[in-house]
Amino acid sequence: MSGPSGCGKGTIVKALLEKYPDQFALSVSATTRAPRPGEENGVHYHFISGEEFERRIAEDEILEYTTYCGNYYGTPKKELYERTAAGINVILEIEVEGAMNVRRLCPEAVLIFVLPPDPETLEARLRGRGTNTEEDIKNRLLTAKREIAVMKDYDYVVINEDGGAEIAAKEIAGIIFAEQHKIERCPEAAKAFIG
Amino acid sequence: MSGPSGCGKGTIVKALLEKYPDQFALSVSATTRAPRPGEENGVHYHFISGEEFERRIAEDEILEYTTYCGNYYGTPKKELYERTAAGINVILEIEVEGAMNVRRLCPEAVLIFVLPPDPETLEARLRGRGTNTEEDIKNRLLTAKREIAVMKDYDYVVINEDGGAEIAAKEIAGIIFAEQHKIERCPEAAKAFIG
Repeated sequence: MSGPSGCGKGTIVKALLEKYPDQFALSVSATTRAPRPGEENGVHYHFISGEEFERRIAEDEILEYTTYCGNYYGTPKKELYERTAAGINVILEIEVEGAMNVRRLCPEAVLIFVLPPDPETLEARLRGRGTNTEEDIKNRLLTAKREIAVMKDYDYVVINEDGGAEIAAKEIAGIIFAEQHKIERCPEAAKAFIG
Repeated sequence: MSGPSGCGKGTIVKALLEKYPDQFALSVSATTRAPRPGEENGVHYHFISGEEFERRIAEDEILEYTTYCGNYYGTPKKELYERTAAGINVILEIEVEGAMNVRRLCPEAVLIFVLPPDPETLEARLRGRGTNTEEDIKNRLLTAKREIAVMKDYDYVVINEDGGAEIAAKEIAGIIFAEQHKIERCPEAAKAFIG
């Protein structure tokens, strides 16, 4: 699941996990950056050292990773595959390059792009946070454009209207439930009938 | 939508139309066979003459057609496209060859195969109707096998459990609503953001 800063991904994920606690879980990334106040190890991130991260890369324990401001961020494989093996739909909140890597490494992944309803709402949401400088907002809007240009390589698009996080969460759940009926995901369905 | 005789397609379609009357409609086929008692023109079929059917084929007014026991059966184009243009999801209850023709002629069609939960249930449902001879039942079971072998060319599979027509209808509606979020069905989504 990707979408520009201000599209409301975080609120949608929260709604999704609240509404379908047994069917969905959020992937917790590993990172080498220091925890910020209020961030909890194992909840917001798995905080690990650079040496440990590089050991995990070397041992093929990280599905995909990136570096940002000199820190590693990546998706631990073990946790992900344990949960998917248990039938849980694991959400990766991931930027567009990471999503393209996931597509390549996990062809069974479903790629969903979340859009705000229009550019004005996107800008209003970024300004509304009040914590961003003018330059920061301009940068985020440029990044948003760049990200939205990659949307065509995703599978689905969901619009997050103002106050619509619950609707968007339902739509995303519906997409995942529908995907479970895809013929290629049910290779055994015909077996009992035609052997 | 296809599925072997006894899979419960009819009951599912009824549940679907009752639950989502504004979003779904059933395509009414044209046929040259005589109406049976209780069948209404324009509801169960459009009953037309052989000459009229052949004129429609010649004028490209029939999407796809087949012959069965010396009669034509086909999907009238005009009605179909008027409804899809109005945003209605039109259901074609169609056998497997027809479905493959629809796929070729309407690449935007979604192909859903309905399965009974297991072969025993399929046979029990066919026998339970009480109107079929032993030979008829054997033929239908053989036809079912042949049809299920084509299922791999469909997009989705939905299992219709005993008494589960409403659940199956919801699953089918969910599949169609999810399909509406497919990137290739939303070519305009990015436009407002990236021009």
